[in-house]
Formats: sequence, C-alpha cells, structure tokens
Amino acid sequence: MTDFDETRAAFHLPEGVVYLDGNSLGPLPLAARERLSAMLMQEWGEQLIRGWNTAGWYVQPRKVGDRVAKLIGAAPGTVVMGDTLSIKVYQALSAALELNPDRRVVLSDDGNFPSDLYIAQGLLTSLGRGYELKVVGPEEVEKSIDETVAATMITEVDYRTGRRHDMKAITAKAHRAGALAIWDLAHSVGAVDVDLTAADVDFAVGCTYKYLNGGPGAPAFIYVAPRHADRARPSLSGWMGHEAPFAFDLDYRPAPGIERMRVGTPPVIALTVLEAALDVWEGVEMRDVRAKSIELSERFIAGVETACPGLELGSPRNPAVRGSQVSFRHPHAYAVMQALIARGVIGDFRAPDSMRFGFTPLYLGAADIDRAIGVLADVLDKRLWDRPEYHRKASVT
Amino acid sequence: MTDFDETRAAFHLPEGVVYLDGNSLGPLPLAARERLSAMLMQEWGEQLIRGWNTAGWYVQPRKVGDRVAKLIGAAPGTVVMGDTLSIKVYQALSAALELNPDRRVVLSDDGNFPSDLYIAQGLLTSLGRGYELKVVGPEEVEKSIDETVAATMITEVDYRTGRRHDMKAITAKAHRAGALAIWDLAHSVGAVDVDLTAADVDFAVGCTYKYLNGGPGAPAFIYVAPRHADRARPSLSGWMGHEAPFAFDLDYRPAPGIERMRVGTPPVIALTVLEAALDVWEGVEMRDVRAKSIELSERFIAGVETACPGLELGSPRNPAVRGSQVSFRHPHAYAVMQALIARGVIGDFRAPDSMRFGFTPLYLGAADIDRAIGVLADVLDKRLWDRPEYHRKASVT
Repeated sequence: MTDFDETRAAFHLPEGVVYLDGNSLGPLPLAARERLSAMLMQEWGEQLIRGWNTAGWYVQPRKVGDRVAKLIGAAPGTVVMGDTLSIKVYQALSAALELNPDRRVVLSDDGNFPSDLYIAQGLLTSLGRGYELKVVGPEEVEKSIDETVAATMITEVDYRTGRRHDMKAITAKAHRAGALAIWDLAHSVGAVDVDLTAADVDFAVGCTYKYLNGGPGAPAFIYVAPRHADRARPSLSGWMGHEAPFAFDLDYRPAPGIERMRVGTPPVIALTVLEAALDVWEGVEMRDVRAKSIELSERFIAGVETACPGLELGSPRNPAVRGSQVSFRHPHAYAVMQALIARGVIGDFRAPDSMRFGFTPLYLGAADIDRAIGVLADVLDKRLWDRPEYHRKASVT
Repeated sequence: MTDFDETRAAFHLPEGVVYLDGNSLGPLPLAARERLSAMLMQEWGEQLIRGWNTAGWYVQPRKVGDRVAKLIGAAPGTVVMGDTLSIKVYQALSAALELNPDRRVVLSDDGNFPSDLYIAQGLLTSLGRGYELKVVGPEEVEKSIDETVAATMITEVDYRTGRRHDMKAITAKAHRAGALAIWDLAHSVGAVDVDLTAADVDFAVGCTYKYLNGGPGAPAFIYVAPRHADRARPSLSGWMGHEAPFAFDLDYRPAPGIERMRVGTPPVIALTVLEAALDVWEGVEMRDVRAKSIELSERFIAGVETACPGLELGSPRNPAVRGSQVSFRHPHAYAVMQALIARGVIGDFRAPDSMRFGFTPLYLGAADIDRAIGVLADVLDKRLWDRPEYHRKASVT
C-alpha cells in the first residue's frame, strides 16, 4: 500500500497554495537540492571530464530510462532519456514511417497536443513523396484506421479535457490494418496505469516535468518495442546513438537496441534532478495512484457541480475514460483562473474557454480538493473574476 | 583589459589538478551553486507553473542567446538556445537545403566532428531525392566548392588537431558559388575571435559545455543570419517555435525570426547554470582571451618539443590557423594520457593516437603549463605509461 503522507512530505509545496497544475509542471522534490549540490561539487566540480565514467553520466540516459520503463509497463532496456518530447515524437514518427515504407498516411486526432501535429507537419513536408497527416476527431480514430495508414500518432490522455483513449484497442486495430501505433504519454506517465507491453505498442514518447516532477524542461523519453529496436533507423543520427561513439568513425552505424535513439550529449544536470524526482516513486504502486486520482477527481467534479452551477464539465464523466485531470468551461475561463490563482488555487487555462485542474495523488488530498471547490465557488458567486487585472494576458498563459 | 585573476577565482578547480580539458568540459563556475539553489527554491519551488512568466523561463532561450551572440559577432535577436548541438546541426542543414532547393550536395570535411557527419547522413537519407554528402580533406574544402554545392557544413576548429579554417574565405567562396555556409562553433565559441556578421555566415551552431563552462550536457545554440531568419523553414517544428504557442492551433505557423528555431520546452535548469557561467564572461575581452590562448599554446608546444622528443605535434605550428588546443601524437597516446591523468594533468585522448590539450585562459596560467610539461616529460622519460592499468579502456575515453 502506497504511503501518500510520505510522498507528500517529499515535496516543497508553497504555503497557502492548492496546486492543481502538477499536470503541467510538478512541484520541487525536496531531495533535488541536495542531490544537485552533490552533483555540482563532487561530480562536475571534482571529477570534471572524468565524470562521464566515474560518476556514470554516460550511462545515465539508459539507467533513468529503466526507471521510467517500470512506470509504463516496459521492459528494462526499452526506454532511453534525452531531448524534448517534440524531438522524441519526430524520432518515433520518422522511424515508424520507414518501417512501413509503402504507406503514406499518418493518422492523428484534433485532441492531440498541437506540438505533435506540428512536428508531424514539419517531418512530412521534409519527406515530400505524398506523405499526408490525417487529423480526425478523437471518436473517429479507431474507425479511420485503414490500409492506407502507415502509423497512428495519438496522445493517450487529452491535454485539455483529460479524455483517455483506449490504447489497447486502437493499437490492436492499427496492427490488424498493418499500421504501427505511436503513443504520446505526456499526460499518462505517473498519472494513469499504462502497460505498453500488454498493449503491444510500437513506439511511445513522453515528458517528465508533469506527473514525474522532473522540473521545468526536464528530459523526455522514448520507448521502442524490442521487435523494432534493432531495425528502426534513427533519422536524428547523433553520435551518442552510434555503435561506437568514441571511435570517431566518419560513417554512422546505429547502436544496437534503444541506445540508437540517443542523439547528442545528454543533459546530465537535468537528469540528476529527475533521478531525485523518481526516488519519490520508489515504493509507490501505480494502482494506488490511479485509485486515489479517481477519488480526488470524482470529489472535485461532484463538489464543483454542486457549488458552481455556472460551469460546464469539459471532461468525460466516466472516470474509466478520463486521465488525472478535469476541465470545466466558462465564457471567462481565463479571468476566472487568474482570480483563482490570486487566491492560491493554481490550475491553468487552455484556450479558448477551459480551466484545467490536475489531480496528483502524490501530494494532494481531499482537504485540498475541498478548499479548491470553496474558492472556486466564491470567485464565481461574487464575480471576483470581473476585475481588469484578471483579463490581462501574460506571455505564457 | 581582462582581469584573468578574477576570472580564475570564479571557478572551482580541484586541488592538485592542471585541467587541460576545458575544451571538452569546462569547470564549475562557483556562482552556479547559489544561482541554482535560488532557482530551485524561489522559482520552481515557490512560483511553480507561474515561473514561466514571473521568473522569465519562457524568454530565457532568447535572452541567453543574446549573451552568446556577443561572443560570436552576432546581432541581438539572431541566436537562440536549446536542445543539443547535433539537433541544431540538423535544423541548420535542413533549413539551408530548402533555401537552396535546386542543389543536392552538402560539402564537409573529414576533420569535422563525426556527429555532424552522422546527422547529415541521417537527414539526407530521410530526404532521398539524390541528396549527397561529399566529404573531402580539410585543405580541399575551398577548392571543392562549386555550383553543385547547396551548403557547406564545416566545423571551424578541428576537434582533434585544433586546425582552424578560414571562415571568411570559405563563406565568401560558398556565396560566390551560390552555396550557403553553415559553421559549427563547438571549439570556437569562447576560444577564438569569431565574427559571424563580418564573415557573412548563413547559419552557425555550437555548444556551451566547453569553453563557455555551462556544465555536462549544457544547451546548444543556433544562429540564423537575419536575411534568412523569416524564410528558413524549421523541419523540427515544435510548439515553442510557433507564432502563437499558447493559441494551440492545429496548424504550424513559424514564429518570426530566430524564435522559430525553438522546438520543445526549454531546459530551464541547465540554462540557469549557463547564465551563471556566462556571468564570468562579463568584462572579458575576446581579444585578450585569444592573445593569452596563443601565449599559453606556444609556451606548451615549445616546452613539450624541448622536453619530450618522442612526441609529434599534431596541430598546425602557426597559431593563426590553430584554435585554442594542441595535440601531440604518440603510439601509446591512450596510456600516456591515463598516466598523466593519474598525476593530475588532465587532457584527453582522441583515437587513434592523439593526446589533446586545451588552453582556457579564463582559469589557466603559465605555471599550469609548465607543470603539465614537467609531468608529461617525466611520464615519457620514465615510461610511466607502460603499466597495465593505463591500457584498460573505460567506456568513454
């Protein structure tokens, strides 16, 4: 049984704040400070260049990858860290298309995170040769998979509504049609129970600054199914993915397995912070997290619907098809969110009219949810959002 | 006049070590610890998601880029930070090829860092359509530029020998032939006087963990000449390079100017360390750095050639065509370097037979050079390298 008092104590949570935006950026794991300080002084400071061997920096992307693998039902040696999620989407899509060379359609949906679509657009424009990105509604994905589709590229949990796709069914349908399935786990890893092996997924990618609490700009990860790992050609063929990076050969030869998905010099400092963040997950059972996530989300929905009749639920009502976040719609969602934030309840706004609230069992409990509901009701009842300062948009909203 | 005593005091240099590998990984700037601690607690810890606005994380890649720009003769607003050098090479080459659509040859040389060649191979394989990477000897580059060449892709300073290309002449020749010039500044930035504007360079890329001391895996940078910045299509079209990232449109529209070369969420923690590292450069004149670099290198070459007759200079003798590093060849270069490192003189080995020594004026002086020469002479005179432990190769060498 997971001890959520212990996990909560592992984070720095600002006084007076209810943080419902851990689905965007997780809070600081307290151990990160000491870990980072030790890395700076004892590793970088004292070992200097030798740290690549003596401090294990060189193997860190794979070692941390194995820790992430455990959270998504992936075998050791199938996940590697590095770069950003957008870069990892590019790698996965590019490799998948080459593994299915006679087809030209990439299938996605309009609930996907836009950067995934942008990356696909950029790649397909480069490739030319009739490649096409087909974007359908989320409910249309399964029925749109046919023999023209080279790969599906889907984010499991919708970044706005929290709607959760059926990973297993879509992957199976893709395979029956001869397509490969790529899954973006940005809003899944650490949030819902993912089993890439059971779902027979081909490629998966994700980030670590949301539910895994790795900090702003924490490194991304990529999973490649073992059956593809030695055949997938890395289009971003950097030296760290070479079979023998330090032989300095002039020709690229991909490393065996997942290592070929490494590109450049790994982000050691960021990976060190992430290691401290992953320590919190030791002893945590994903099924306990999922159960508590549903409990908190259900409590929030019921409480808001009772106390705030002016809001419209923007998320699926059935928790089985919902991730670990809930959104509510309001015509002045931006200003309402600003008023909430000014009162210590932090969620976020997603254009055009959604307020998004994330439920992160590692450090949130029922009392936080109740307080958030109370503040939200107050802001709406008293129209506290109707002040000019809450309508001014910041550069990042 | 640059105060090199002050710059030296800004770094943590381990007791008893002469560090001649700052061309591979610069030492820890002492201010990084406090800066990072403040970033963790006051920014990430307290501001959480709001840090993107309130702590300036969102604009950091551009702000830091402007600081790097100053060191390479680039105007404000022409450089942006992010990703790794290999990714930035990919972006630059991909954009350059599209700006010169009727040509199919990428020209490089076999003194280029292999990752650049690997990245080109990966990109050109993806593109198909008859694209070709032509790799010539370093001396052949200028004469090999003809009307078939779409872009030259050259590293200014050779990672092994320190040989320095004539950036201005090669760029001019490329332009006369209708080609674009891409320069990799990995061993140039902070090491030699670079003036991208005067040389009329089209694209430049570089890393910040060498002479800029940003730490292991510090972010890379890309420069795009203002004349191309609004026309270059980003093939890695991530949301941070979108004209309006937070509008969450389904279609990619590149941001104006250099911002379009951003890809995913920026590495805030690593950029914060880099900011502390760049503070050391405030008040430093690049011409003073270059003058002292030549002084140190010349002293080292003269001393080694006198004291170690068994070594062969692997670098150009003329400092005008040499960067800030010197290599010497020895049949047992690997073992000799291990013996040196065991005695506190840290350089590195580059296959097959080079010992590489970097000269970093911010924290090295004549006494360091003399001590290194003395230890090297001792290791060779007494054949101290001829012990089994110095012949065992580590994973990263």
